[in-house]
Amino acid sequence: MRFLHTADWHIGKKLQGYDRIEEQKYVLSEILTIAKDEQVDAIVIAGDLYDRSVPAVDAIEVFNNLMVEWNLKERFPIFAISGNHDSSIRLSAGTPWFSQTNYYLQTRFEEAFTPIVFQDTQFFLLPYFEPISARIYFEDDRIRTIQQAMEKVITKMKEQFDPAKKHVLVSHFFVMGCTKTDSETKIEVGGLDAISGKLFESFDYVALGHLHNQAALKQENARYSGSPLKYSLSEINQKKGVWIVDLAEQVSLAFRNLTPLYEIEEVTASFKELLDPKFYQGINRENYIQIYLNDRAVIPNMMNQLRKIYPRILGVERVNGRIQQTKRQQKKLVAKEPYKLVQLFFKEMTEEPLTRNQEFWLKETLQEIKEME
Amino acid sequence: MRFLHTADWHIGKKLQGYDRIEEQKYVLSEILTIAKDEQVDAIVIAGDLYDRSVPAVDAIEVFNNLMVEWNLKERFPIFAISGNHDSSIRLSAGTPWFSQTNYYLQTRFEEAFTPIVFQDTQFFLLPYFEPISARIYFEDDRIRTIQQAMEKVITKMKEQFDPAKKHVLVSHFFVMGCTKTDSETKIEVGGLDAISGKLFESFDYVALGHLHNQAALKQENARYSGSPLKYSLSEINQKKGVWIVDLAEQVSLAFRNLTPLYEIEEVTASFKELLDPKFYQGINRENYIQIYLNDRAVIPNMMNQLRKIYPRILGVERVNGRIQQTKRQQKKLVAKEPYKLVQLFFKEMTEEPLTRNQEFWLKETLQEIKEME
Repeated sequence: MRFLHTADWHIGKKLQGYDRIEEQKYVLSEILTIAKDEQVDAIVIAGDLYDRSVPAVDAIEVFNNLMVEWNLKERFPIFAISGNHDSSIRLSAGTPWFSQTNYYLQTRFEEAFTPIVFQDTQFFLLPYFEPISARIYFEDDRIRTIQQAMEKVITKMKEQFDPAKKHVLVSHFFVMGCTKTDSETKIEVGGLDAISGKLFESFDYVALGHLHNQAALKQENARYSGSPLKYSLSEINQKKGVWIVDLAEQVSLAFRNLTPLYEIEEVTASFKELLDPKFYQGINRENYIQIYLNDRAVIPNMMNQLRKIYPRILGVERVNGRIQQTKRQQKKLVAKEPYKLVQLFFKEMTEEPLTRNQEFWLKETLQEIKEME
Repeated sequence: MRFLHTADWHIGKKLQGYDRIEEQKYVLSEILTIAKDEQVDAIVIAGDLYDRSVPAVDAIEVFNNLMVEWNLKERFPIFAISGNHDSSIRLSAGTPWFSQTNYYLQTRFEEAFTPIVFQDTQFFLLPYFEPISARIYFEDDRIRTIQQAMEKVITKMKEQFDPAKKHVLVSHFFVMGCTKTDSETKIEVGGLDAISGKLFESFDYVALGHLHNQAALKQENARYSGSPLKYSLSEINQKKGVWIVDLAEQVSLAFRNLTPLYEIEEVTASFKELLDPKFYQGINRENYIQIYLNDRAVIPNMMNQLRKIYPRILGVERVNGRIQQTKRQQKKLVAKEPYKLVQLFFKEMTEEPLTRNQEFWLKETLQEIKEME
């Protein structure tokens, strides 16, 4: 058994308001290319297919078209589960028809105990779940944590083990001791949502989803694939890709890198440099760019000027702070009329001028105040 | 070819806030019973499967379970389209897998021109569409109305006609000259959204959805099935059911009634009668009941008393109006303190007492006013 392991697609996820659906289509089509190139027997997707429980229609369309291509056209068997970002019931619509062509998308806790047997391997597809599901299923009120739940889950799975087969677990949660980044959201306090990697011992391989960093866990038989794209600035230094898992005699793992349409990049420079073609010719300006500005002066209309050159700015941070005003400047300000003052203050704080509407509202409000006096 | 024609399920639709999912499950299971009993070759669903473009999860679950039972378990071929209440893209997820077992759910305008050939019949599945879709598809800017669009649509369909086969059109819109009721929503002014029944001449049968009244159109070869449940008080006198269509030699139509879990009923009585067991023993109190009250007096705590006996009241209408106050009563009111006055007024208008929260807010507000004086 040789399969490709990916996870955390988060189709529809935006980065600082930038729509990334085209990048997602691009990088997911790379995954198919790798699958063909590596001649895998199957593709495993370990949860968080979508970014939201009610995905937008364009996200649904992307995912649906992908599965049509991968499974119906290219005939790849698919073993997928829902993650914490997915709606279990919404995703489950249609699944009984999918399995006719070896496309297994499991979203219900109780389904996890019936392995999918494919070639020489038993796949246990365990969707993301909360301890309460295990509490109900096992009729055991003592189950309060994911660790407690997983002990029972794995015991029950092992009862279904066919010793003549390999055993793969696909699941979606936080393994103790892993480092995490910004975009996995809501890691509960006290590690109640984490489980110990020791639990995986009986499996030939555990394909994990949840953490976006493929290097978060380095256990011989258990890995996170990580997300195919960088979903936050904190993921800037992460290598993105998929695992090619070969269970032939012993487990062998190879990481295949993915190349995004746009990278995330950090640039430290002065405003003058940023506007200088000689400077920015060395930069892929289409990338997502986090700017560290080393000027200290106030720069009028800064964001608009920068955006004309860098269309995907993530943020601008002043590394040396901004110049403090002198007593004289402050005095000059006090003498100004309120309209001018608010206008200046707004520009200084937001680095944008007032819009027409804002100007209108400001004038109106000042007029009202005047009338009240 | 012998098939069952139904439409306008609106799974998830509420009636005056009452959840009807159990009634929907009940009545839809009756449809399956009829399909088996009548030994039909297929089931046609002419749009508005759901009530909203983003259905609630319980609605999705009901529809999904139904299709699993009807198509995968009972092996009925299904020919369905999306209606104006459905989201074309959301519904389309998974459809390429469905067709493997003769479950066709078409949601895209351009798919309508490839008929599904099943046994001796070509099924043309035309989902609900707006004129703009036809304008783009036919590259014809003159298409402004549904009538104009449908002329082109049907001409194109006829080009695909196999003369050796029967021809069935499944579609979802308003046919000119039909009467409409409350719950079909948004009938555009000027009949721009209506088409002439004459257009159907070339088909052996046209299975329509959109109008909830099966009697709205009586054309030999075209019918609305109507909704399986009464979805508004205005549908109270409509017969609900499904058509059994037999295309054997010439078209033969039979209407099979559906029996709902709860009926809609109108009751005219006095408050005293309504509370009298002798009176209400003759009524199925579980039904949705529209009350026409012939008392004229103000009745304290009326709704609460009635709801204890009739759990599904749609509304209470005073058929003889309410008693006007005498001058003396009015004078008495003026003498009352504000709190008492608001309390009385609220009860008289809503026929409900103030809730605890409302009492609290009222007291607080009156206190504030007092402090301002």
